Amino acid sequence: MNEVIETILAHRSIRRFKDKTISEETITTLVECAQAASTSSYQQVCTIIGVEEQEKKQKLAELAGNQSYVAENGYFFVFCLDYNRHKIAAEMKDKDISETIQSTEAFIVGTVDASLAAQNVAVAAESLGLGIVYIGGIRNNLKEVSELLGCPEYVLPLFGMAIGYPDATPGKKPRLPLGAVFHKNGYKDNEEAKSLLEQYESETAKYYTKRTGGRRTEGWVTQITTSMASPKRAYMKDFVRKKGLNKT
Amino acid sequence: MNEVIETILAHRSIRRFKDKTISEETITTLVECAQAASTSSYQQVCTIIGVEEQEKKQKLAELAGNQSYVAENGYFFVFCLDYNRHKIAAEMKDKDISETIQSTEAFIVGTVDASLAAQNVAVAAESLGLGIVYIGGIRNNLKEVSELLGCPEYVLPLFGMAIGYPDATPGKKPRLPLGAVFHKNGYKDNEEAKSLLEQYESETAKYYTKRTGGRRTEGWVTQITTSMASPKRAYMKDFVRKKGLNKT
Repeated sequence: MNEVIETILAHRSIRRFKDKTISEETITTLVECAQAASTSSYQQVCTIIGVEEQEKKQKLAELAGNQSYVAENGYFFVFCLDYNRHKIAAEMKDKDISETIQSTEAFIVGTVDASLAAQNVAVAAESLGLGIVYIGGIRNNLKEVSELLGCPEYVLPLFGMAIGYPDATPGKKPRLPLGAVFHKNGYKDNEEAKSLLEQYESETAKYYTKRTGGRRTEGWVTQITTSMASPKRAYMKDFVRKKGLNKT
Repeated sequence: MNEVIETILAHRSIRRFKDKTISEETITTLVECAQAASTSSYQQVCTIIGVEEQEKKQKLAELAGNQSYVAENGYFFVFCLDYNRHKIAAEMKDKDISETIQSTEAFIVGTVDASLAAQNVAVAAESLGLGIVYIGGIRNNLKEVSELLGCPEYVLPLFGMAIGYPDATPGKKPRLPLGAVFHKNGYKDNEEAKSLLEQYESETAKYYTKRTGGRRTEGWVTQITTSMASPKRAYMKDFVRKKGLNKT
């Protein structure tokens, strides 16, 4: 165990921040950490938008489903998959790379690139005593978010991240049993998975019952299957295609 | 600056490892670090396959384009997007969640989840003095990789990661200028991007010329647009759909 692993294992999402801004120097360090992550074939498909104007943050908070901490935090980042710069580069060299950009493969590459960069920011921020929470909620209204941030074709905002000095000490929700997510040499059979899920259902039911004083008693299996029974963000396929991505 | 940020900024991909295995205890710690990452709506969409059998590693190395370090390393992980466990959970609760799983939105969620988990592993491994390299090359032949690892419907191997004791000290390739990837309050106009790309082209051309003793002299703009002019892995869309993912 070392400081790095301690930081990683101590992660909790923070949804309440002190009214204290983060220094410009720290923001620069966090962006440098983002850039230090691995990138597929040196493509560097991530662009980070730092949202500083309070009015824009407020608007984003509304678009993300009225999550107050999107507006009230030390800093707010939006991580974008970005092939617009590759398009500019191609124009400089008189090449056509649109078929590559529009592919499912490129969509995977860009989503992975942006996520690796973001997780470096998360870990680095937490190492400085800051708290973070990922905001997938910006995908509730991605067209409006994209317009608000002026994202052109080939640029897709994937998720936000609120950062700040923590003003809450939430518990750590139990993760799936290690054996459920770690398989050796090949994917395990479903019988073992089922038995681990039953065990996890009981563990998480106990956790929620205790944490909420009995208000919520459902375990993970119940929670997840209830929420996933209602499809969300069904507009995504069309919107992503309109951005010129994930088409072929 | 602290130990965590130093570790993150010092990242280089390592493609040559000492013939030394990594302890079971370390592997468990790395998987725990993967699990500690944020996960969208508590869905935990990542499964990690640890490939230990040398024959399978050899086969993977071939499928990934004859990359020797896929077979020769201290350990090899494959990170998968995995909604099979949610399907099992849904069967336990007699729910139908297939529409959610098959959506573009879920494909984003799962790809992000697996990537955040992987980057925690990368940072944790490097903090222990290990080196890592991501292996997108497993997507060269994903059908064969998926069969080799026995991945069912709804489980998509996204990338591998070779880990081991470094036996090389590669240089650190210059990243895009910070101003190119970090925009404030909104996406910057393309004129600024173009000018930054011209500057970066020159910087990376110098870097490559020096590093290769003049054998390679192309900068990033030239390299990337040449490689992206040839679409790769065009089978991906169909394969991913056959897995039941990214359909609607």
